[in-house]
Amino acid sequence: MKGDRILGLGDYRTERPDDTIDLRGAYVAPALWDAHLHIESTMTTPGTFARHAAVHGTAAAVTDPHEIANVRGVAGIRDFLSAAAGLPVDVFVMLPSCVPSTHLETAGAALSADDLAPLYALPNVLGLAELMNVPGFLFGDPAVVAKVEDARRRRVPIDGHSPLLSGLDLNAYVGAGIRSDHECLSRAEAHEKVRLGMDIWIREGTAAKNLDDLLPLVTAANSERFAFATDDRHPWDLLRHGHLDHHVRRAIALGLDPVLALRLASWSCARHYGFSDRGAVAPGFRADLLTFERLDDFRPDLVVLGGRRVAKGGKLLVDVPSARMPEGPGFRVEGFDRTRLRVAAGDGASLRVIEVRAGSIATGASQERAALSGGAAVQDVSRDLLKLAVVERHRGTGNVGVAFARGFGLKRGAVASSVAHDSHNVVVVGADDASMETAVRRVAEIGGGIVVADGAESLAEVALPVGGLMSNDSMADVDAAERRANAAAATLGGTMDHPFMTLAFLALPVIPELKLTDRGLVDVAKFDFVAPVV
Amino acid sequence: MKGDRILGLGDYRTERPDDTIDLRGAYVAPALWDAHLHIESTMTTPGTFARHAAVHGTAAAVTDPHEIANVRGVAGIRDFLSAAAGLPVDVFVMLPSCVPSTHLETAGAALSADDLAPLYALPNVLGLAELMNVPGFLFGDPAVVAKVEDARRRRVPIDGHSPLLSGLDLNAYVGAGIRSDHECLSRAEAHEKVRLGMDIWIREGTAAKNLDDLLPLVTAANSERFAFATDDRHPWDLLRHGHLDHHVRRAIALGLDPVLALRLASWSCARHYGFSDRGAVAPGFRADLLTFERLDDFRPDLVVLGGRRVAKGGKLLVDVPSARMPEGPGFRVEGFDRTRLRVAAGDGASLRVIEVRAGSIATGASQERAALSGGAAVQDVSRDLLKLAVVERHRGTGNVGVAFARGFGLKRGAVASSVAHDSHNVVVVGADDASMETAVRRVAEIGGGIVVADGAESLAEVALPVGGLMSNDSMADVDAAERRANAAAATLGGTMDHPFMTLAFLALPVIPELKLTDRGLVDVAKFDFVAPVV
Repeated sequence: MKGDRILGLGDYRTERPDDTIDLRGAYVAPALWDAHLHIESTMTTPGTFARHAAVHGTAAAVTDPHEIANVRGVAGIRDFLSAAAGLPVDVFVMLPSCVPSTHLETAGAALSADDLAPLYALPNVLGLAELMNVPGFLFGDPAVVAKVEDARRRRVPIDGHSPLLSGLDLNAYVGAGIRSDHECLSRAEAHEKVRLGMDIWIREGTAAKNLDDLLPLVTAANSERFAFATDDRHPWDLLRHGHLDHHVRRAIALGLDPVLALRLASWSCARHYGFSDRGAVAPGFRADLLTFERLDDFRPDLVVLGGRRVAKGGKLLVDVPSARMPEGPGFRVEGFDRTRLRVAAGDGASLRVIEVRAGSIATGASQERAALSGGAAVQDVSRDLLKLAVVERHRGTGNVGVAFARGFGLKRGAVASSVAHDSHNVVVVGADDASMETAVRRVAEIGGGIVVADGAESLAEVALPVGGLMSNDSMADVDAAERRANAAAATLGGTMDHPFMTLAFLALPVIPELKLTDRGLVDVAKFDFVAPVV
Repeated sequence: MKGDRILGLGDYRTERPDDTIDLRGAYVAPALWDAHLHIESTMTTPGTFARHAAVHGTAAAVTDPHEIANVRGVAGIRDFLSAAAGLPVDVFVMLPSCVPSTHLETAGAALSADDLAPLYALPNVLGLAELMNVPGFLFGDPAVVAKVEDARRRRVPIDGHSPLLSGLDLNAYVGAGIRSDHECLSRAEAHEKVRLGMDIWIREGTAAKNLDDLLPLVTAANSERFAFATDDRHPWDLLRHGHLDHHVRRAIALGLDPVLALRLASWSCARHYGFSDRGAVAPGFRADLLTFERLDDFRPDLVVLGGRRVAKGGKLLVDVPSARMPEGPGFRVEGFDRTRLRVAAGDGASLRVIEVRAGSIATGASQERAALSGGAAVQDVSRDLLKLAVVERHRGTGNVGVAFARGFGLKRGAVASSVAHDSHNVVVVGADDASMETAVRRVAEIGGGIVVADGAESLAEVALPVGGLMSNDSMADVDAAERRANAAAATLGGTMDHPFMTLAFLALPVIPELKLTDRGLVDVAKFDFVAPVV
């Protein structure tokens, strides 16, 4: 190596013994690439993420900062890019294509093609991020089409997000130049997509896990068409299981040729995003390397990024700039109180219930007889029918969406979070309205985060003052606070190990089947509002 | 399909029956890509080449017009690009990197990095062509390095040409960003190169054939790293064996999976050269398609290029612009006569003999006792020791290089050609000096081409007035003229089927072992001149 480059492979000699590293028979591989993730899901900043990713052998992450963009728009993307600059792990950015994700919710910003245009020139910006608004695209919504056409003109990569899209609709989507997808829910779906020219990112995130289903599709012949992605990885998962090394380890355990597993984790991804000098061990390539000892238990040991020895044996060897991100903006929920949670209902009313499943970002739907009190539908903990609300917090609209959800198991109290994809309003689920009010107010007071409340008391909190999404604290501190919040929720009867992870996706109306936004209950298949009581 | 694009794959319906083609069970594949060729070797213009390539299923050809560039410099490249525009087959251009190919010869032009710079902006220019001056590059010749550095700054592909390069030197060459090679003479050589990050073009030209040797290296896992190239294909070969379809047919016959063979012939090449919407059958891709009926005898039937039905059953369906190229420049050989062929030699002198092998562009070397007459070494047909000369024709320098060669078998007369890679001076081999003078003078009189002479008489001629390299006539006419010239050479005792093809490489001092330029005899390994008589 010389500078940040690999000079060559072969029998080189050097005068200075310090220039030689004796690997004692270890393997050398390219350092690893994450094809798609939202760093905001680590609830920490890019610098904190990089500290942890680097020791797991990560060279680069292709990120979509659409969480902070939904809160703060272009300013959020610029702050993210600033915080991501100069890190040992290269944090590349795809520009958020769908802010807000739909017209069914209120976000903190709306980004048009004209808003995005000047950002393409910024360092580390690669292309246009996951095009989630598939209906808008297929119906030819000019605002959506303009972003795709602009990216095509620039000849930059465009990422997809098209769960279950198939047939002629999928042809139209791919034909527009949308050439990756990380949302394949089945092998048949991935097979159709790869056959039509998409590259497939095998996602193994904290909530959504597709590796077992999709890996059997990978062959030697198509192995440049697949890469690995985490999409959303939570602090505890990153701390316990690592990053891309986890994908490689599991893929090998599932029987994939280790060399192909490493190809997916490096070259396939780098090449897709237009890099011809990264992701391989070859002369002239960037010296992003890792060493490891066993094929059957892949554990990066020495990690070299850009020619620098960055980590060894799980410990960082270099300082990583902390690059704090600005806190704010404040939460505009002044008019909110428990009266806004009332759901009027008459005798014999039925509830449209969001059936929540731990560990899934999709929901089911059912109908249940409403429990009534004073002309309103109320919680019924005996049937695990809790109230779910989404409180708009960006613009002071006073919007509050209310419906019923089953699956959290709370017998009392409430849990609330400002991590609520993608608009990141305050989502709250509770056994009583008073606890729900307390939780929402406290989230707003601390500038965003997670709160567990019982009556008027806040039991546990995770402060996420950077846009209500991230903390400038260490990952260990954030993780410890979340553990305390999880434990507090369990004392209230909560049955999920990670209730906030599940809660965070209940306001995302692009994932089936029934979701709730600040504007109301959404039937995702109809892509329209439905009443919570029928 | 719609316009020039593939709209999709699937169950499309259309109202108009004319919009449907019933393929009756035939296969559909992407049309084919030639990763590297010199159209000048077809002795016809790009338009004429395209007429013949299209019926064989060729979609695109990545060309290096360095023959015409050696004669006419930037003007030659511009004329070539003009003639190549608007053809059904896309003729892409890599800019000639080594004009002249070495400092050991006199070419019609010298192209510096500054000369090339404005050409990168022209339509269909993709990058920098084969870097043949490997010694110059390795020694850090600033003029050579400047061209490579300029191409790197532009992030365009750089093609290699590095026969037998290996080890640390190869690392330096690849590390500079030179990422393809079509000059692998053995499987071991190609393996080392592909391992270091080069993509390998499996060349099957008229003279140089590497397919049998290299094909066993191709696997499913590395099949995006190999493509097919012709490099130099002569009219008779193109007319008889076709173009890339020949590679696919032979690769399948040698046992390669037909799908991989087609990948090498399309997507692998298109992707290498930076195209993400060509070379595959997928929505949004350019509609460059062919149909065929049998996997075990690949014969393109219907050929669709850019959405147009261009050929069917070996016949063109569309008009192809003839786009004549300008004739000239004139040949400046005024001072040349037979006295310039004299090789002074004393008693007991030995000749350094160029050992010519039919069908090989490399030569051997031997020493032979000189036949003497009047204080000079002379031809001795009893030992097949003929005189070889290269007469400078661009600048009127009067340079004449003379040496001896064995392998042509002429018993009388001479054959001359202005196709003499890469400087394209007039190369002549003959059994007597008078015939040689006649042949050279006649080549000059007709503005370039091929001549067979006996004494004062010209027996047969192929006029190539476009730079002394190409004809504006049809390929059939050029082929017929060359057949007559071959037959005439045979009447003089010539033993080669294609003497002019072999003759054309005897002035190329980058191919081992002993070559002759207008400036003298070159020992290629020493990269310097040696005396023809010792």
